[in-house]
Amino acid sequence: MTPEISYVIDTFFTIFAFVLIIFMVPGFAMLEAGLVRTKNVTAVLMMNTMIYAIASMAFLLIGYSIAFGDFGADGMSKWAAFLFQMAFVGKIINIVSGGVSERARIVPFVFFAIIMAGFIYPTVVNWSWGADMLDGTILDLTMYDLAGSTVIHSTGGWALLSAILIMGARKGRYNPKTGAVRVIPASNIPLVTLGAFLLWIGWFGFNGGSVGSIASKENADLVALTILNTNTAGLAGAIIVGIMMYLKYKKLDITMVLNGALGGLVAITAGPDLYNIYQPILIGAIGGILVVIFVPLFDKFRLDDPVGALSVHLVNGIWGTIAVGIFASDPANGITLMGQLKGVIVVAIFAFVSSYIVLFVINKIIPLKSTQDEEMEGLDVNECGLEAYPEFKRAF
Amino acid sequence: MTPEISYVIDTFFTIFAFVLIIFMVPGFAMLEAGLVRTKNVTAVLMMNTMIYAIASMAFLLIGYSIAFGDFGADGMSKWAAFLFQMAFVGKIINIVSGGVSERARIVPFVFFAIIMAGFIYPTVVNWSWGADMLDGTILDLTMYDLAGSTVIHSTGGWALLSAILIMGARKGRYNPKTGAVRVIPASNIPLVTLGAFLLWIGWFGFNGGSVGSIASKENADLVALTILNTNTAGLAGAIIVGIMMYLKYKKLDITMVLNGALGGLVAITAGPDLYNIYQPILIGAIGGILVVIFVPLFDKFRLDDPVGALSVHLVNGIWGTIAVGIFASDPANGITLMGQLKGVIVVAIFAFVSSYIVLFVINKIIPLKSTQDEEMEGLDVNECGLEAYPEFKRAF
Amino acid sequence: MTPEISYVIDTFFTIFAFVLIIFMVPGFAMLEAGLVRTKNVTAVLMMNTMIYAIASMAFLLIGYSIAFGDFGADGMSKWAAFLFQMAFVGKIINIVSGGVSERARIVPFVFFAIIMAGFIYPTVVNWSWGADMLDGTILDLTMYDLAGSTVIHSTGGWALLSAILIMGARKGRYNPKTGAVRVIPASNIPLVTLGAFLLWIGWFGFNGGSVGSIASKENADLVALTILNTNTAGLAGAIIVGIMMYLKYKKLDITMVLNGALGGLVAITAGPDLYNIYQPILIGAIGGILVVIFVPLFDKFRLDDPVGALSVHLVNGIWGTIAVGIFASDPANGITLMGQLKGVIVVAIFAFVSSYIVLFVINKIIPLKSTQDEEMEGLDVNECGLEAYPEFKRAF
Repeated sequence: MTPEISYVIDTFFTIFAFVLIIFMVPGFAMLEAGLVRTKNVTAVLMMNTMIYAIASMAFLLIGYSIAFGDFGADGMSKWAAFLFQMAFVGKIINIVSGGVSERARIVPFVFFAIIMAGFIYPTVVNWSWGADMLDGTILDLTMYDLAGSTVIHSTGGWALLSAILIMGARKGRYNPKTGAVRVIPASNIPLVTLGAFLLWIGWFGFNGGSVGSIASKENADLVALTILNTNTAGLAGAIIVGIMMYLKYKKLDITMVLNGALGGLVAITAGPDLYNIYQPILIGAIGGILVVIFVPLFDKFRLDDPVGALSVHLVNGIWGTIAVGIFASDPANGITLMGQLKGVIVVAIFAFVSSYIVLFVINKIIPLKSTQDEEMEGLDVNECGLEAYPEFKRAF
Repeated sequence: MTPEISYVIDTFFTIFAFVLIIFMVPGFAMLEAGLVRTKNVTAVLMMNTMIYAIASMAFLLIGYSIAFGDFGADGMSKWAAFLFQMAFVGKIINIVSGGVSERARIVPFVFFAIIMAGFIYPTVVNWSWGADMLDGTILDLTMYDLAGSTVIHSTGGWALLSAILIMGARKGRYNPKTGAVRVIPASNIPLVTLGAFLLWIGWFGFNGGSVGSIASKENADLVALTILNTNTAGLAGAIIVGIMMYLKYKKLDITMVLNGALGGLVAITAGPDLYNIYQPILIGAIGGILVVIFVPLFDKFRLDDPVGALSVHLVNGIWGTIAVGIFASDPANGITLMGQLKGVIVVAIFAFVSSYIVLFVINKIIPLKSTQDEEMEGLDVNECGLEAYPEFKRAF
Repeated sequence: MTPEISYVIDTFFTIFAFVLIIFMVPGFAMLEAGLVRTKNVTAVLMMNTMIYAIASMAFLLIGYSIAFGDFGADGMSKWAAFLFQMAFVGKIINIVSGGVSERARIVPFVFFAIIMAGFIYPTVVNWSWGADMLDGTILDLTMYDLAGSTVIHSTGGWALLSAILIMGARKGRYNPKTGAVRVIPASNIPLVTLGAFLLWIGWFGFNGGSVGSIASKENADLVALTILNTNTAGLAGAIIVGIMMYLKYKKLDITMVLNGALGGLVAITAGPDLYNIYQPILIGAIGGILVVIFVPLFDKFRLDDPVGALSVHLVNGIWGTIAVGIFASDPANGITLMGQLKGVIVVAIFAFVSSYIVLFVINKIIPLKSTQDEEMEGLDVNECGLEAYPEFKRAF
């Protein structure tokens, strides 16, 4: 294969992967819009739209050069390589915004999106996939993280945790005395399902494209294996949660099953190219189990996360990164459990602390959280001036 | 073109086709969720999600080796070839689950999905596309069926018919004395439309990918012709049903028009690569007409199919397979009307009988059908423990 | 790269682009279904479905040969080239049907779709991208219009303007005395958002595929740059409208923000391959600003356009074509501001006059507009015989 053929095929393949990832924009939007109450749906959709736009623009203007230096790529069009990287950025902020739904103001999170996409995330990328400012220091990250269990999902998850700590829970979510959780049902299950599958499909581009090239027999195999393993982990996450729900409640809670699938998908993301075709069953299943365990656990600590993003992205991002150390440790290639753990911890500290500081400062200038009256009335009217379903009569 | 270039391109192309087919998962889910009553929407979505997960996993662990022997493919990554085949499996069970909506319990159909994806469907594939256990016997199938008018759609349709015969109709669907049909309107037309178009788009991958390779001038032409003809048959099915509806009722019933499009798409699936660019107009139009004829006919026989799956998949699967014998008979290549008919009949008997037995046995252990009380209350609460649209006040 | 490899890759790439454009069919359908009142949703969906089917069929049977002469393409499968062109056609009629929503009968617009797809649009294509009947005449178009700011979006926009002039506004939209506009809120914001993003994604295929080939280093770069610039213009359109809305109302009106993004996307469509990566920020931002200015302006002239299609497609189609003359004028390659203006004007006159005549004649035979009673009751019942959301109780 000549370099030109490989250049063309990899450019095309990366564009294909980019497009799949962009399906995650409506994917996150539909998932979150379906999970929140009708009075907050427009705000969730507006948040998703604005932060996608702002974060992508910030990455174009600032972040990319921090992450990778100049625009440039050897084996493919530099613009295709850039598009692929840019598509990742919005996802991180989506993770954050999803978990603070039903109480977050849009404008302060737009500012946070600029900082996250322009500085925090590019720094994490620099350390892990990029030019590497940490090289030669004690913090030098040797973690293997193909498509970002840590770099994307945990980073987003830590930022979300810092946001939840600063903002607190939705009004009425926890009984102030007993801590009892008031269940707030999802308002539109078809949207939740549609969103989850759009995310699932986007993941094929996310992980498959992260192999970096399809233009050789070896790489073609690796891309196909990566996509197969990605899918298998999602299947396993869904199935195990389905079984657990059925055994415990005799009911199949679809929001948990779909979050189980997403948990499995996050868990596989660090090393889908490293496993045989059966290991993802275990990794994804544990991902699903972690969702079932951690969703109520976070509630116990009154960390209010309407869409389960902490369990899906933070917990499984960590699990997926460690899983590489357990199942695909390969000291000859520098993949060790310790290296994976170090990556998890360094990124955790940096992402949590930097996000906390930025959000803390923003919160002093523009409150991140709506007032209780606004929350009661619904964010749609207050943030966007229009309701999501104005003609539909509310049951309550 | 070197073998490596062709290997890379075909792997990429097959991954592309796989991804399009996976859009059919939300496609079926949205179509069916839109066609049923609001009280059964979550159950339909959960059914679609679980059987996709279970069927794919069963095919990974069991079915593929029955169908094709070892994992393996010559001209492309074996994992890409596997992904493509696996994507087909879920579709079959979707056909079954759609047609028994609003009364089917999820768990027994999960078990059926395992048997169907692990054994019944792989056997049909083995006979038609695979290693061929029937070779040299009197049943040797010479049927041409590029992307599965019979192998996928009729197989699913026969299994659905057996399920309907065992389960009976929804409560109140037919007047016990007169047989008069109570019309049960679709609850969410935008979802129906979205689902139908996602299926339509998935069909491009389904049929285009079934050509098996795009990596030569001839194959590139064949793939493009296949996709063009696939689309044309869908157009023709929609148009003819639109005209029929308008002439008869002066109203354009969108659910019939979309089912007409899907009928045309099923009908073309056996031989989209064999026709010139005008024949699909006729084949698709007849597909649409068959939907208009058979939807009321099945109701006359009290075969209750809330989404029209029998007319779309079973009837048009048969029609499409026969159409190849009529319009593209080519004895030199072994394509004859008799061969097509033999294929239809052999698969019919095997798929119907084996599905009937399996469903009959499952039904003895776990009833396939909800109780009448559960049906009245809605399957969502009973199967999933949550409603699809809890905040929206019902009009009735 | 051998001609065969290039043939295969470009066929595959064009199929990929075609599939992305087809996502615009549900994209337009969901956007428009979400923007109109619940009583008109089914009619909008049926309109979108039928005109897609009819227009594509008319282009297959008549229009393509007018536009391009024989079926044929040198560097790729002629069927792939045809699919790509056919996918464009439906978009034009979607623009028209969207802008006359909530009062347009379906059947007369089906006839208009045949004329538009069979004759008007192919003539515009012939003059601009095709065999060129105007060559050597004073009207010879030298306009640069890569993916159709003028050829698609303005053509559709002019046709829409003629339809609005003939049909008039929705009942009750404007106070007959004061001209005050009655705000009619969108009924389903998640659908609007989903539709807008499906359109956005389709645009990558629309513009990227219009480069015509990816099969060389230069073309791969050009395709990737085109997609990057397309996306950037959409981002800029969304961001600027978001800022304007917030500064003026302290609210982020999501329908305006999404229309701003679409305006930016239309504006970039004439020359996404000609700009550096920063110019699209300006071009898209102006696109968004134009939407904010023109939506109320058209209302001032009582041009009733429920989805903002005139501002998005007509105004920005013109702006985008002129922008090429401003930012990428290159007399050596025949790109001049005067040439761009001439293209805008010639197409404007032809598209507007021919559409006006055709619609005027159709309107005499079958009225384009529903009666006021039908409008009051809703088009769904009258045009389609079924409601979009029959089980949901209306709030008013």
